[in-house]
Amino acid sequence: MPLADMLHFDEKGLIPAIIFDAGTREPLTLCYLDRAALERTLATGLVHVFRRSHGRVMLKGETSGHTQRVVDVFADCEGNSLAIAVEQKVAACHAGYYTCYYRRYDRAKDALEAQGTPIFDPSKVY
Amino acid sequence: MPLADMLHFDEKGLIPAIIFDAGTREPLTLCYLDRAALERTLATGLVHVFRRSHGRVMLKGETSGHTQRVVDVFADCEGNSLAIAVEQKVAACHAGYYTCYYRRYDRAKDALEAQGTPIFDPSKVY
Repeated sequence: MPLADMLHFDEKGLIPAIIFDAGTREPLTLCYLDRAALERTLATGLVHVFRRSHGRVMLKGETSGHTQRVVDVFADCEGNSLAIAVEQKVAACHAGYYTCYYRRYDRAKDALEAQGTPIFDPSKVY
Repeated sequence: MPLADMLHFDEKGLIPAIIFDAGTREPLTLCYLDRAALERTLATGLVHVFRRSHGRVMLKGETSGHTQRVVDVFADCEGNSLAIAVEQKVAACHAGYYTCYYRRYDRAKDALEAQGTPIFDPSKVY
């Protein structure tokens, strides 16, 4: 049975997907796929998302070249979300960091603090 | 500034949070928090979620006792989602598996296949 038929897409026709590093297992980003994006992801082996701001399916990394090669796709117990293990090219985050989750909440300071350093300069890529 | 003020909650007042194992970094589940659930999570150090089916804030593991102790909270680059590193008690999934993402998509068989074995017997817990 096609994977899409085993999943529940929400009222907008989307399913959230945790994208995580196949090696370190660190979460990289959260994205949303519609049925077409999922089929394109499986067919090409590269993560495709439904970009709500653009209203269409896009290759993740279409502009930057920072694509994500699919290693494994997991579905949650209820078929409401996916977790996709990937090999990330360069970096997942448009802000230049490897992961979109580079800001850690510091309870004592009540502030979000960037961890590590950017891998690329966004002003030279976008 | 309170963490909630640095985030964007969606039109239902929710923000998605990737819950992942603080040790192995594996994704465990995806849940949704409203402002109250986030405040309760930070105040108690235990993950609280807004359970849509119940229409209220609940301690994750309220019924099973399988709670998640917060180790670190990360916000994504745009403040649209969270990633919370936790110490998981027993298992994250109500189906008995450690992670909700225990079903791997097998491309050749076009099927979801359970990986590993359940940690507990759901019929004895719920």
